[in-house]
Amino acid sequence: MIVFEGIGGSGKSTLAKRLGDRLETAAWPVRTTREPGGTELGSAIRAILLGKGQAPDPWAEAFLFEADRALTYAEVLKPSLEAGAIVISDRGPFGTVAYQAYGRALDLSLIDAMSETAWRGLKADLVFVVDVEPRVGLARKRGSQEHDRFDKEDLDFQSRAREGYLFAATRRGADTVILDGSVPSDEAFDQVWEATVAHLEARLAAVRGEQA
Amino acid sequence: MIVFEGIGGSGKSTLAKRLGDRLETAAWPVRTTREPGGTELGSAIRAILLGKGQAPDPWAEAFLFEADRALTYAEVLKPSLEAGAIVISDRGPFGTVAYQAYGRALDLSLIDAMSETAWRGLKADLVFVVDVEPRVGLARKRGSQEHDRFDKEDLDFQSRAREGYLFAATRRGADTVILDGSVPSDEAFDQVWEATVAHLEARLAAVRGEQA
Repeated sequence: MIVFEGIGGSGKSTLAKRLGDRLETAAWPVRTTREPGGTELGSAIRAILLGKGQAPDPWAEAFLFEADRALTYAEVLKPSLEAGAIVISDRGPFGTVAYQAYGRALDLSLIDAMSETAWRGLKADLVFVVDVEPRVGLARKRGSQEHDRFDKEDLDFQSRAREGYLFAATRRGADTVILDGSVPSDEAFDQVWEATVAHLEARLAAVRGEQA
Repeated sequence: MIVFEGIGGSGKSTLAKRLGDRLETAAWPVRTTREPGGTELGSAIRAILLGKGQAPDPWAEAFLFEADRALTYAEVLKPSLEAGAIVISDRGPFGTVAYQAYGRALDLSLIDAMSETAWRGLKADLVFVVDVEPRVGLARKRGSQEHDRFDKEDLDFQSRAREGYLFAATRRGADTVILDGSVPSDEAFDQVWEATVAHLEARLAAVRGEQA
């Protein structure tokens, strides 16, 4: 389970897609997904969360993200991981720490308890946090067609979200890689690939150890 | 804030409606609502929760109920209570204890923490739990046009939900009235009216005390 995290315009989605393609080319079983909206019902929730209307109440928003997360766990993550696939997700629980706990100033301990429950205790093997100056992220998003409700929040909000991502990354420690989102994407991808190969080698070694 | 709780077919909705009508006739400012689905966005959530398709993952279901609750708090309860209205809700947090914690066997402490947060610490002044044998409730529901996903669950599930309601009522204590849902509705309504009048008198006395 590999998760890409970062504020809008960080470049995480591009990196996630590229990693999926590269692993597939190398004949690894891959399942890509995203938060929110990794399931059919989740797409309806995504539309509510990222839609054009006014933002819903902040706690309603947090509960909807967790509902989407629980659905994605049950319908995508659990079956794919059981089938032996490498699951790559564009965003995961760090996002709720960043946007809801830090961005919207909601209680972190309840956010954490919900996210852990939504994933039934599953931990990602590897998390990439693509870090970028909010100013840079916003500028990139404004140049693209795709900007959602969170991308439209102001610089202050994006700065809090960035801080939340860095907090989540630091708290988690070893299996988290903070990438500089301002360097060329090829360069960032080299780091992604290196860390992923190291993770897969460790995983293979563990499997061999069990078989020996 | 007055809440009516009980399993499907208990008769709670009829009692809630009747109380609202009676108070309105007596010129009290009343706002009636329900869970789930007390808001525009909540109606979309209600459709997901009570719809015809397969039930979503149990935790996704719980998070969706809390999202709906948070929306109803922000858009209906808070403004109505601030405007001095008596809010009457057809179901509230007891329902999540009954159906999710007891019915679906989910962790009660997380359910409690979420419900308290969704209502930002608000407590109902008065809760009526209309208690009925699940067998009786189911029979009534089958005779009516309105039965949702929860009404279609088996007798075992309804029994656990009933137990959850009684647990929630007992835990809350003094301001909860358990009504016998098997007696004629007029008789149950007399009890509702008596308890409501006593509550309103106490409320008026408190206001007079403050003014004195």
